Amino acid sequence: MAAKTGRKKWVYWFGDGKADGNSTMRDLLGGKGAGVAEMTSAGIPVPPGFTITTEVCARFYENGRRFPQDAEPQMWDTLARIEKSTGMSFGDPSNPLLVSVRSGSKFSMPGMMDTILNLGLNDRTVEGHARRANNPRFAWDCYRRFISMYSSVVLEVEKEAFEKAIRARKAARGVTLDTELTLEDLQGLVGDFKSVVREHAGKDFPQDVKAQLRGARDAVFRSWNNERAIAYRRMYRISDALGTAVTVQSMVFGNTGPRSATGVGFTRDPGTGEKKFYGEFLTNAQGEDVVAGIRTPRPISELETELPAAFRQLREITARLEKHYRDVQDFEFTIQDEKLYMLQTRSGKRTGHAAVKIAVDMVAEKLITPREAVGRVEPAMFEQLLHPVFDPARRKEFAVVAKGLNASPGAAAGKAVFDAPTAEAWKARGERVLLIRAETCPDDIKGMAAAAGVLTSTGGRTSHAAVVGRQMGKPSVVGCAAIHVNEELKQATVEGRTIREGDPVSLDGTTGEVMLGDVPTRDSDILEVMRGRLDPAESPTYRAFAQLMKWADGIRRLKVRANADIPRDAEAAIALGAEGIGLCRTEHMFFAPERLPIVQEMIMATSEEGRRAALDRLLGFQRDDFYGLFKTMAGRPVTIRTLDPPLHEFLPKREDLMVEMAEAKAKGLEGPAVEQRRALLHRVEQLHEFNPMLGLRGCRLGILYPEITEMQARAIFEAAVRCAKEKKAVLPEVMIPLVGHVNELRHQAAVVRRVADEVMKKAGVRVKYLVGTMIEVPRAALVAGEIAQEAEFFSFGTNDLTQMTFGFSRDDAGKFLPLYISDQTKVLPEDPFVTVDKAGVGRLMTMATTEGRGTRADLKCGICGEHGGEPETVVFCHDIGLNYVSCSPYRVPVARLAAAHAVLREEARGGSRTPAKKSKARRKKGR
Amino acid sequence: MAAKTGRKKWVYWFGDGKADGNSTMRDLLGGKGAGVAEMTSAGIPVPPGFTITTEVCARFYENGRRFPQDAEPQMWDTLARIEKSTGMSFGDPSNPLLVSVRSGSKFSMPGMMDTILNLGLNDRTVEGHARRANNPRFAWDCYRRFISMYSSVVLEVEKEAFEKAIRARKAARGVTLDTELTLEDLQGLVGDFKSVVREHAGKDFPQDVKAQLRGARDAVFRSWNNERAIAYRRMYRISDALGTAVTVQSMVFGNTGPRSATGVGFTRDPGTGEKKFYGEFLTNAQGEDVVAGIRTPRPISELETELPAAFRQLREITARLEKHYRDVQDFEFTIQDEKLYMLQTRSGKRTGHAAVKIAVDMVAEKLITPREAVGRVEPAMFEQLLHPVFDPARRKEFAVVAKGLNASPGAAAGKAVFDAPTAEAWKARGERVLLIRAETCPDDIKGMAAAAGVLTSTGGRTSHAAVVGRQMGKPSVVGCAAIHVNEELKQATVEGRTIREGDPVSLDGTTGEVMLGDVPTRDSDILEVMRGRLDPAESPTYRAFAQLMKWADGIRRLKVRANADIPRDAEAAIALGAEGIGLCRTEHMFFAPERLPIVQEMIMATSEEGRRAALDRLLGFQRDDFYGLFKTMAGRPVTIRTLDPPLHEFLPKREDLMVEMAEAKAKGLEGPAVEQRRALLHRVEQLHEFNPMLGLRGCRLGILYPEITEMQARAIFEAAVRCAKEKKAVLPEVMIPLVGHVNELRHQAAVVRRVADEVMKKAGVRVKYLVGTMIEVPRAALVAGEIAQEAEFFSFGTNDLTQMTFGFSRDDAGKFLPLYISDQTKVLPEDPFVTVDKAGVGRLMTMATTEGRGTRADLKCGICGEHGGEPETVVFCHDIGLNYVSCSPYRVPVARLAAAHAVLREEARGGSRTPAKKSKARRKKGR
Repeated sequence: MAAKTGRKKWVYWFGDGKADGNSTMRDLLGGKGAGVAEMTSAGIPVPPGFTITTEVCARFYENGRRFPQDAEPQMWDTLARIEKSTGMSFGDPSNPLLVSVRSGSKFSMPGMMDTILNLGLNDRTVEGHARRANNPRFAWDCYRRFISMYSSVVLEVEKEAFEKAIRARKAARGVTLDTELTLEDLQGLVGDFKSVVREHAGKDFPQDVKAQLRGARDAVFRSWNNERAIAYRRMYRISDALGTAVTVQSMVFGNTGPRSATGVGFTRDPGTGEKKFYGEFLTNAQGEDVVAGIRTPRPISELETELPAAFRQLREITARLEKHYRDVQDFEFTIQDEKLYMLQTRSGKRTGHAAVKIAVDMVAEKLITPREAVGRVEPAMFEQLLHPVFDPARRKEFAVVAKGLNASPGAAAGKAVFDAPTAEAWKARGERVLLIRAETCPDDIKGMAAAAGVLTSTGGRTSHAAVVGRQMGKPSVVGCAAIHVNEELKQATVEGRTIREGDPVSLDGTTGEVMLGDVPTRDSDILEVMRGRLDPAESPTYRAFAQLMKWADGIRRLKVRANADIPRDAEAAIALGAEGIGLCRTEHMFFAPERLPIVQEMIMATSEEGRRAALDRLLGFQRDDFYGLFKTMAGRPVTIRTLDPPLHEFLPKREDLMVEMAEAKAKGLEGPAVEQRRALLHRVEQLHEFNPMLGLRGCRLGILYPEITEMQARAIFEAAVRCAKEKKAVLPEVMIPLVGHVNELRHQAAVVRRVADEVMKKAGVRVKYLVGTMIEVPRAALVAGEIAQEAEFFSFGTNDLTQMTFGFSRDDAGKFLPLYISDQTKVLPEDPFVTVDKAGVGRLMTMATTEGRGTRADLKCGICGEHGGEPETVVFCHDIGLNYVSCSPYRVPVARLAAAHAVLREEARGGSRTPAKKSKARRKKGR
Repeated sequence: MAAKTGRKKWVYWFGDGKADGNSTMRDLLGGKGAGVAEMTSAGIPVPPGFTITTEVCARFYENGRRFPQDAEPQMWDTLARIEKSTGMSFGDPSNPLLVSVRSGSKFSMPGMMDTILNLGLNDRTVEGHARRANNPRFAWDCYRRFISMYSSVVLEVEKEAFEKAIRARKAARGVTLDTELTLEDLQGLVGDFKSVVREHAGKDFPQDVKAQLRGARDAVFRSWNNERAIAYRRMYRISDALGTAVTVQSMVFGNTGPRSATGVGFTRDPGTGEKKFYGEFLTNAQGEDVVAGIRTPRPISELETELPAAFRQLREITARLEKHYRDVQDFEFTIQDEKLYMLQTRSGKRTGHAAVKIAVDMVAEKLITPREAVGRVEPAMFEQLLHPVFDPARRKEFAVVAKGLNASPGAAAGKAVFDAPTAEAWKARGERVLLIRAETCPDDIKGMAAAAGVLTSTGGRTSHAAVVGRQMGKPSVVGCAAIHVNEELKQATVEGRTIREGDPVSLDGTTGEVMLGDVPTRDSDILEVMRGRLDPAESPTYRAFAQLMKWADGIRRLKVRANADIPRDAEAAIALGAEGIGLCRTEHMFFAPERLPIVQEMIMATSEEGRRAALDRLLGFQRDDFYGLFKTMAGRPVTIRTLDPPLHEFLPKREDLMVEMAEAKAKGLEGPAVEQRRALLHRVEQLHEFNPMLGLRGCRLGILYPEITEMQARAIFEAAVRCAKEKKAVLPEVMIPLVGHVNELRHQAAVVRRVADEVMKKAGVRVKYLVGTMIEVPRAALVAGEIAQEAEFFSFGTNDLTQMTFGFSRDDAGKFLPLYISDQTKVLPEDPFVTVDKAGVGRLMTMATTEGRGTRADLKCGICGEHGGEPETVVFCHDIGLNYVSCSPYRVPVARLAAAHAVLREEARGGSRTPAKKSKARRKKGR
């Protein structure tokens, strides 16, 4: 094994204008490693170094979290090359090479894994470092930073222990700022830190630089599986199997003095997409200072006056990088004594708004094609364009109390909370919350995800809060210095007023403004234009959206329908591009206040005649409903599901009636009113079910009471013939729910077809229509070939199909599903009620589609469960060959985009609809 | 089409010692047609005739219930051959040919379809018939019978209308018996009957004999789909597609005078299996008189003195037939003026007791092989041997009030009911009923099925009640003349005492005795021998049973286990041949009165510590339970399922507590007791689920509270190591319920294996064990390949798998399932909770078995749902390659026999485990 793998390349060099890797090798080298390799080869100034591959990471874990021995020599050989290139020597007291050790996986996971700077310092090399920089204070500052960083990451000493030592030293010296500490103070602090390490880690801080490097390297590999990295991967569906690379790079210093600086930036605004140089820097600082949000950095435009040559070079290099990569670049740089070094470049994460604008702009700039533009916008991000904005009319009523940096656009209002766990807990109980922190750190990401928006008092546009906020599409205002946050007391003050936990606060991530109170929102530009309330010319957002949708529609083959029960929803659906109604739930029409008593009368009836009498009175209502829907949909297909829910849903709750009767009895009440309630309870008892989900509902109702199906069919076809007579196109698709056996469908289809014939014969017009079924009971999928004998279409009801395939009641799964998808058990990779479970539910869908079409080649297949608007599910539906997806009207644009992505992914695979298992296996082997 | 099918043979001749068909053609000619053809060829006296095939029946239905024109000429040509053979002529007034028209399908359906005798009589031929027989009274009696029979069957005139006319005529003449009517009376009655026909059918009784034949023939075809025939097929799982043949045969007459007779019989006793000539006859009667139960016929032994020559010939012929067919024969004969004719022979239906005895006897007689003997006993019938018998000690307390014919053995006690619908209704509400009728008719079969036993006051051992009772294995006493039944008043009198609806009555079908009251029963001989309470030498039933079981065990490959939770059940299981325990439900151990409070304490605990404290106290109980079970099973595998039901099952009901609290509030009660109940309600509310079936149960509980699984594993392995230390063999199989994802099993298996290691390490002994899972969630079957990575065995939990695959809650399906399996909708061919649904649930089982073994070749697969003891399911389990079935201890013998049948059926197919789809399709096409 060792002999075989020993010859393999584990370590990739970059430096002196040459690199073993390039930008295509992100799988192997991580984003960072691939980026620095590509830059190095392109002649861009990058400090030399090497990357240890993600394959080594995999072997590290296979090996019981130990670094594979055969990769060790390659690492030291390549380290020697850095020494040669820089003319410095690792561990050499006279001219010590210092390195950074960073993580880097295929997909950027900002701040989630560990980084160590200034590695190579010890009691002896610190002196050489001081002499070389001619700045002993700088050198000892590096050393104390290194000890605390290394010890917390590698030796797992609590950071707080070092903070405490600093506070003690400052107190003893009577100063408040770090910068006020003298050389002697820092030297003393190094001693203090070493004591802290001895005490907390039970061993000395390592003086052997090789041991330092090995320790840091392994810690970075380990950090792939720290809690927050796992949580992050969950959130962004990044595979746990990818692993991280480790990049070891010679240090350059932005903290040698005022002619040095360090910064991060974007080639365009990642919040809005505007084409402007965007970023921040700090002079005399190390990189971590900028992103950690501890010091508020300066806008990058000010670098031009500060260090004009370096600034010009930076602009030129980053413009070249954007052109080279044909995408917005997110870069890091350091200027050491006026010399510019690029430390990182990668595709910049952006908000949905920015993604759309940048994609459309880049097509105009001929940098990318429209197909590429469509591929650049993640459907999940895209949804942000439809999020509400503050209602301009109402907003004036609320005073702006502070203004911060507009880090991530959008309107957010909610109850103030001051820590992540509270944000999560309050969200879980249904509250809308706003997370307010001095600064955020990687431990906060779950809380950020739970919040409607994020507000920080420190940190810049590239601070953790800003970067993560944008990535999540979470409206964020950062660096809002006017607000003083006291996390311990769980409150903040602004302009003399106190914001306590639970107080309503609003923020506008587009302008950076913060308001007290719950500012009402209005619908997004997109919806406002759709409704004719906003002129498209006034909304660049709308125009970019429309352009991208047009391209997406040109690419996709999967049709997109909407679930809608009433004409108003149907109108919105059409405006948002729906090509039909995939699910109209007729029972929703039964709950209207003037109808419910009639429905209850029908349920209470003890004979078919009694039921028919009530149904006759419902007929007119339903007919008008359907007529309205047909008219709105103007000939597009309208799938109408016959009555689905159990009848007791239309009656008062059993336990409430039981309690009422018990009270009446205890109080000795009697009389006709009590008698009537008792009769009601009696019927409710009859209808009571232990598992209503698996009880008398769906087609079972229609088979027990065919007169209900009959009335509904009559309403549908009377509405349809009315349209036909008025020369309005109409295409009803009658859908029978909960079918598990072909005979159930046969029974109900016969009722529908008979009534259709009667109505059309009487009216003297013919209307085309289809009769089909939901596939939502596992058995239906298993015998789909038979069911297709009767069904002219299938519509996957993935809500119920998921419930029954997993045996999870959606109403009850709250007791265990959160635990299942938690990092604690990792039982399920994701919530199957959000993304369709491909291996189980998806397999049934694939079987049903294939075997249904085996019986009836032109069988129309769609999905109408709530999964229908979820991008990953949309792609899956395309892959298994469905004809359409149907989702809520507001998800229609997302589904359209996802359907286009499905085609692009298919093309990337080489045109096969289903990702072949073989090629997957090959990909795995190839790694 | 017509041209192509026109040359085909639709009509099969038999007569004059020659026949177109033979006994192998039951599919095409029906049992009757094949029987008479075979007898004719064997030189046995059979009146000549022909059979119209079941293919014609299929075409009759395809053709909109019209007889296919191209078969018409074949029929008339073959009728001419009867004329030639008999020398009589159809419709000839001087020497008229009369025929019978009978149904006959592949499987005998006694009395379910229609039969017409004496066809060919009209106003003119009746005279020739009279002259030829030299008996005008006989001829006119034939004629009036024919008119009423034909008119009720073909023209659908109510039989009652004819009865009324007879009663009127008798009253006018002042007589009470039919036989007292004179020739003139009968001639008058023919006139009356013709008027009845005209009035009720709206047309004249047909005088055209050809029209008569066509009408009768078509009516027989139609009767294939009458209500009772359909119900019968449902009950015995006979395919609706088989169709019936029609046999037209020249009439012979048992009613020409005292030298004529008609009868039916069996070559051995169909109730007990005893080898004795068994049957009944009536002199001067037609066949229908015997089976209809109107006149009580005489035992066949008396025929020897009455008509000795014919009797000898009958014994000789039937003995030949039994030898020829190598099975008990059920035959019909007619003696016309001392000449014997055989009308029918077929395999005789028999009770389970008789089936076993006959099979074992015939092996001893070297008539059949042991393999054939096993194949002769239907597993469903076999179960009758295990039915309880009256407790001999207690029985003496009850006086025998009447004695009838012991038509079908067994003990039955229940509430008296006097009509079939009441029997069904009372059964449905959970009552045990005894059906008491003057006589039964085919309309009663559902009521007979619902009853515990059947008692009739008239009819013989071959009457409808007797035949059907035996077939159903229903204890029956018939012809019990001492009991006078008044069906209208719903009561009966016996010895001056009145039995009213609902009164308890007992009957012994083995002795024919009837007792008032509810006589207690004891277990069957089999169980009594097993328990050492009965000497096998004293029980022939046991000896035959044991012999058959031995042969069956030699044939079967499928293992049979039992579901048992306690040592007593385990002992019974072993005694009945179980080879292991397939399901031990640990929760049953939680319900014991000394344990339940501890379980409740565990549920009420708010911390893991609290739960652990309660679990520690349960540990000892569970360990002792398992130790007892292991000891009993002596090294046979014992599959133990970890906790499965939702926790609220161990607490009081939510609604009861709610009502209690409401009452307490209304009455103003307060105090610590109320407070405690309120806390209980609070916890019950927390645990409340909308669909508990799909909620927090099974492995979900074990994942949420791993300490429960841990305690159970500890109990299992501590018991196992105790056995090991005592040198007792032990093989625990720990089964995790409700797994849907491999990670669930991985989680729980890790807990089990960790505890197993701990316990065994501590004890210093190793015990072999397996960890596996139930496959009861559809998803588990769909990803079985993955699950088999962790599972060492699969056990199909077909109860839950059926619930989830169909989306039927077993607790609630009572609202619609009866309708689904009713003839009214025919949605489902059978109750999927009784016989496993092969197309849906079975497909999942097949997939899971195949794919599970794809991952783990030696994966042990079994079934532990209640289907595991149902014969059809057992055969299916064999066919898909399971290793074992597990069922309740008392079903074990049935399962063993069914498993042997599976092998025999497989051999009959030519050795393939799964019935090939292709050959099925071919069979279909071939018809």
